[in-house]
Amino acid sequence: MADHMLQEIQEQPDVLQRILDTEWEAVLAAASVLRERDVRYVVVAARGTSDNAAVYAKYLFEVLLGMPVSPASPSVFTLYESEMKLRNALVIGISQSGESTDVLEPVRRAGNTAAGTLAITNDETSSMAQAAEFHFCLRAGEEKSVAATKTYTAQLLLLYLLALALGGAEELDEPIKRLPDQARRVLRTGWEGTARYRYADHLVVVSRGFNLATAKEAALKLMETSYVVAEGFSGADLSHGPIAMIGQDFPVVFIVPPGKVYRDIKALVEELGDRGAELVIISEDKDLASRAAAKFLIDGSGPEELSPILYVLPMQLLARELSLLKGLNPDAPRGLSKVTETW
Amino acid sequence: MADHMLQEIQEQPDVLQRILDTEWEAVLAAASVLRERDVRYVVVAARGTSDNAAVYAKYLFEVLLGMPVSPASPSVFTLYESEMKLRNALVIGISQSGESTDVLEPVRRAGNTAAGTLAITNDETSSMAQAAEFHFCLRAGEEKSVAATKTYTAQLLLLYLLALALGGAEELDEPIKRLPDQARRVLRTGWEGTARYRYADHLVVVSRGFNLATAKEAALKLMETSYVVAEGFSGADLSHGPIAMIGQDFPVVFIVPPGKVYRDIKALVEELGDRGAELVIISEDKDLASRAAAKFLIDGSGPEELSPILYVLPMQLLARELSLLKGLNPDAPRGLSKVTETW
Repeated sequence: MADHMLQEIQEQPDVLQRILDTEWEAVLAAASVLRERDVRYVVVAARGTSDNAAVYAKYLFEVLLGMPVSPASPSVFTLYESEMKLRNALVIGISQSGESTDVLEPVRRAGNTAAGTLAITNDETSSMAQAAEFHFCLRAGEEKSVAATKTYTAQLLLLYLLALALGGAEELDEPIKRLPDQARRVLRTGWEGTARYRYADHLVVVSRGFNLATAKEAALKLMETSYVVAEGFSGADLSHGPIAMIGQDFPVVFIVPPGKVYRDIKALVEELGDRGAELVIISEDKDLASRAAAKFLIDGSGPEELSPILYVLPMQLLARELSLLKGLNPDAPRGLSKVTETW
Repeated sequence: MADHMLQEIQEQPDVLQRILDTEWEAVLAAASVLRERDVRYVVVAARGTSDNAAVYAKYLFEVLLGMPVSPASPSVFTLYESEMKLRNALVIGISQSGESTDVLEPVRRAGNTAAGTLAITNDETSSMAQAAEFHFCLRAGEEKSVAATKTYTAQLLLLYLLALALGGAEELDEPIKRLPDQARRVLRTGWEGTARYRYADHLVVVSRGFNLATAKEAALKLMETSYVVAEGFSGADLSHGPIAMIGQDFPVVFIVPPGKVYRDIKALVEELGDRGAELVIISEDKDLASRAAAKFLIDGSGPEELSPILYVLPMQLLARELSLLKGLNPDAPRGLSKVTETW
């Protein structure tokens, strides 16, 4: 029997389809209420994998709606007990379990002072689902793997639907409807050339814009399941300092979606390739990928805003593969449990 | 002759004193204008070291003033060309040179739409100083080292003074006046036991709250100057996944200031110590530090909100020491120059 992690990775196309089939009405209903209110900015509370969904939310709301997004630092609420000015804020809590105290607390405290509160969890009966004015359910079924996969892409899709509805859409558009099938196609593809990372003990993952979330989530999955010291960067942030550490043979994974970020990331691939770094590439661009020591080709991903849902899939597969290659159990990361208690 | 990096590290007490002597009036003047406006949240644009100052700003404005802070993702402005809702936002750009296009652009675009714009740079004639309504000067003198040190602590101090003035203070308080002397005292102290990291190629730096900025800046300095793969975490974020990678002998640097975060970080020191991690500790707590393989004792640091200015000093020294130990030149990080062009 396959491990939970692989099973749940494979379930993602069905989860995405289920969300499209059952949650769009709830999203439209919440959006029509919120559009009547004076929402000027968004505060997102999340931890771990959900915090990477929050990075995606930042680009979504800022680029598509022009609303600045502030990631909540839970300690500001729980430890320093600050009274935040939230009158014009939509406060969103993202948590698979809906029980992490440090994510629940900002939503609870926002209570009636914010312009609105929304919980995105995998459990309609969870404390956060109860505490928030609105709740979107991930519809992912039980997640047994400690390393979250299907709840992450479900979070991304619900955030995208919310941005779409807040922007005034009333119908699902074609690129979204194609998403479950595209995910299925990506998951039928495989990695080429990953065995060579059996003894890699560090790497960086680079992307930009919407897929900064993908780089960060990829790094987290690698740290959790294969104990590789991994760090996710935007290409811009990498160039402002950390790039110094990347010399000959240093493994760099590039997430290269089509769209506005393509040109800049490609230039960085070339710069680091010329410097002798070990290139790992996820892209639709076969020519670019041909420079890589290991690659994963994506077969058509639609608009850049949606691409993080597809481009993270190869990284989930890679994290699991490396875990197995290193003789570890991807379902049992050292020292972790499914619900992380407060902090 | 000492390298630039060490010289500039040593200049910091004088720079801090100079700011207190010459910039407080400018800060008061800006604050009295801004207090008349309807500022409800803050957007901070920065990259690299300055972006770690922005992390400090987030805690300052959120905890002391209850104003949510949104770190600007420059690509939202430069690449996706979003029209952001900034009517109630104070937009702050932080940049040593004041010339980084991707930091300049958000400040420029905010222009007249924001509630106010402020540039914090080391050059009153810089493009960003000209573009913003207000300018605070770092007064650090020329920074020759590519790895920024004195401009970072200068940024922190100016941000603290701004928060103080926005909160209604009219005079500098005693803890601030003591800061230059405290910095002098820290810089007279030395590390114990760092030679053992000659061959370390990765580590993590952990703190929480205000000193999350310190953990991130420490990691950046290490990556830039000693090419160690370093990552800065809040203890809470570490516990939500990355902690899995920390096994026997994994080096973990703990920044343990006194204050509200003390108890939680101490618990994590104990947990990872019991797990066999290699502990490096910066603290005022001699008992706690006695568990460490390498330690740096701080002799009294005042309030937690100000402690990041002092607690980063040992990490600057450590980054430089490791660079020399590894046979590198701390003044010449591979592939970096002082002003990073756009991205």
